Amino acid sequence: MAAPAPNTQQEMRRRNLARVLHAVADGGPRSRAAVAARIGLTRTAVSTLVDELLGAGLLVELGPGRSGAVGRPGTALALSDRGPCGIGAEIGVDHLAVCAVDLRGEVRARTAMDAANRDSDPGPVLGRLASLVEEVADEARGLGLRPAGLAVAVPGLVARGTTTVVQAPNLGWTDLDLAPHLAGNALGTGALTGSGTAVCSIDNEANLGALAELWLGGHTPPSGDFVHVSAEIGIGAAIVVDGELLRGTRGFAGELGHVPVRPEGRPCACGGIGCLEQYAGEEAVLRAAGLDPRATAAEHPGPGARIDLLATRAGEGDRAVLGALAEAGSALGTALTGAVNLLDPQTVVLGGALARLAPWLLPSLEHELGRRLAGPPPVSVSRLGPDGPLLGAAHSVVRAVLDDPLAHRA
Amino acid sequence: MAAPAPNTQQEMRRRNLARVLHAVADGGPRSRAAVAARIGLTRTAVSTLVDELLGAGLLVELGPGRSGAVGRPGTALALSDRGPCGIGAEIGVDHLAVCAVDLRGEVRARTAMDAANRDSDPGPVLGRLASLVEEVADEARGLGLRPAGLAVAVPGLVARGTTTVVQAPNLGWTDLDLAPHLAGNALGTGALTGSGTAVCSIDNEANLGALAELWLGGHTPPSGDFVHVSAEIGIGAAIVVDGELLRGTRGFAGELGHVPVRPEGRPCACGGIGCLEQYAGEEAVLRAAGLDPRATAAEHPGPGARIDLLATRAGEGDRAVLGALAEAGSALGTALTGAVNLLDPQTVVLGGALARLAPWLLPSLEHELGRRLAGPPPVSVSRLGPDGPLLGAAHSVVRAVLDDPLAHRA
Repeated sequence: MAAPAPNTQQEMRRRNLARVLHAVADGGPRSRAAVAARIGLTRTAVSTLVDELLGAGLLVELGPGRSGAVGRPGTALALSDRGPCGIGAEIGVDHLAVCAVDLRGEVRARTAMDAANRDSDPGPVLGRLASLVEEVADEARGLGLRPAGLAVAVPGLVARGTTTVVQAPNLGWTDLDLAPHLAGNALGTGALTGSGTAVCSIDNEANLGALAELWLGGHTPPSGDFVHVSAEIGIGAAIVVDGELLRGTRGFAGELGHVPVRPEGRPCACGGIGCLEQYAGEEAVLRAAGLDPRATAAEHPGPGARIDLLATRAGEGDRAVLGALAEAGSALGTALTGAVNLLDPQTVVLGGALARLAPWLLPSLEHELGRRLAGPPPVSVSRLGPDGPLLGAAHSVVRAVLDDPLAHRA
Repeated sequence: MAAPAPNTQQEMRRRNLARVLHAVADGGPRSRAAVAARIGLTRTAVSTLVDELLGAGLLVELGPGRSGAVGRPGTALALSDRGPCGIGAEIGVDHLAVCAVDLRGEVRARTAMDAANRDSDPGPVLGRLASLVEEVADEARGLGLRPAGLAVAVPGLVARGTTTVVQAPNLGWTDLDLAPHLAGNALGTGALTGSGTAVCSIDNEANLGALAELWLGGHTPPSGDFVHVSAEIGIGAAIVVDGELLRGTRGFAGELGHVPVRPEGRPCACGGIGCLEQYAGEEAVLRAAGLDPRATAAEHPGPGARIDLLATRAGEGDRAVLGALAEAGSALGTALTGAVNLLDPQTVVLGGALARLAPWLLPSLEHELGRRLAGPPPVSVSRLGPDGPLLGAAHSVVRAVLDDPLAHRA
């Protein structure tokens, strides 16, 4: 059945305000008349809505517009570069990062630090993250922006609709509700915005990376059906159907890293057997290349350092590394064969560390798809690099503002 | 963003008529007041809508209601048993079947015949099906019903939103648009209903089986997130997310039968290697049990005959058959491990031939899930038996009528 109609005038107004903001966000600066034409409301109705959004500091007027239409040129409307902003944060195994993105989608402030978060005590890690959030929020305020909320990307499973990290194997965190940690320090939403209306969410990094690709990447198909595969230390994926993330009942969908690819192969830390991660995860690739994962991590600490090492050696023609990456690509191809059979996506996008290593993974990956599937989907490589999850986090806050502007007025 | 609001009064009325019909369909006979309370419209508005639905022959009045409310008892409203009905048809490898289901969801007429459709010429097969459809439609008309449309279940891939069977390996049909065949004989929608408004659709049998389970089975979880696995000759699956079928870009989602479970194992007819179907499909199980598939099919023709044979022998303790079914269950468990990791469904439901063989498949299937997944979902067994796809087809027409009653008035 069709979705229920909005029941109240207030709800209708909220929707129409969001439609006006999205019309400006999707098309760049445009006149009231152009907005009215795009969303199918009268110019009078749009003018009233626009006045409210100007008053709330979400839209600004840029002076005579560039609409090209006949008659008096309209004033062009644009999203404000001084209104609400989204704060995105990322807890990586080797680093912490925070950024602020304005309504126009531009990164206005960012900071990051190397960190040793493997098997860590969550309190101090979240304390350090809180300092970085405050630093970025202060910088944003100095630019006239108002932090409207915080979204945090974590390398682990997050229970759907909650702030609980059920399992983050590389951090060593289990069944940890981040909310008390957030409330107890500067991450608290009150401290962040000075109001009670802030968005605060925790999500899996692979989910946020896929959303960033959908919103910013430029590689996703018009159908909005794709599988996004990313890797940092582990391997994650996210399934996007009709432009929406498929989250699963518990919020655990997209665990491509634990699809069996050698069903009677190596035991996996997840308790499974022959999981993809045992053949294409960072540690597996280092080991297959003849490198000791722990020693290499000690020698090359920091985010992306081992990936850089692998890319450098592969670029130099190191046979052991090339062989290890070919094997990883093949294992990825086998796991993706299963995913393609089940989901029939229009494309597959490789992001994160996989994007960096794509030149050496793709040949065996595509060979595997080709020998197993009659019509394999195209595989493309993300241009967002390792920033995907961080940008996805900040943009998720910005989109929440665009979707419900009344909750985020000054 | 939220769905757009309905733009016209006509559209609003259409939606409200559908809401009234669904309120009666979901709750059994109920009064106008109970309908109004359920859907949140005024009694006056509901009365106007009900009058229109009574006039169109979609609702009937049953006399004083059983609402239990204070005051004058209302007249109970029920869906008509003489209004529109849905015609469902199934093209099996070994049989053809057709049934008519009324608005209340009851099967009012049905017929079936054994058939040898393997590697068949589509023309004569569709001709025979057309005769069965006419027979059932005539019987329905004799009961005062009006056939509102036809939906056909086929054992193959159907291009999304079309009437084209892209590939039905066991029928031997490729890139075959059924529409010309339908238009050229009694399957034509005009001939079926005497009007131009009939629904006519072609869908994959596994999809329709899963929808039947969702609508009628009683085993699907409240979240509407489940994977439905069925088998006739091949193995099919369907993924239901939030109560909606996940169809995939081309309409090919749910191909669990071609997920690699022994990645360097047997070549598959699909062109892949080590696909589930090579270990758990009917032919594979017969072969593993020491039976020649072609000879057994010749000796035991007809729908479900080999499955009955396997079930009988397994019930008698035949070691070869028990071993073959245990191996099939294990292969199913490996493929489902991948599906669960990717989709995080709330449950898995076994339907079709798998339901019949469940007693002997489940132990090894659940053992496999248990050794590969930390929290495996429950696996339940469909009660619909092999009728799922046929019932799903007929019910899809009935639901189209309930969703858009204006298009199906007398």
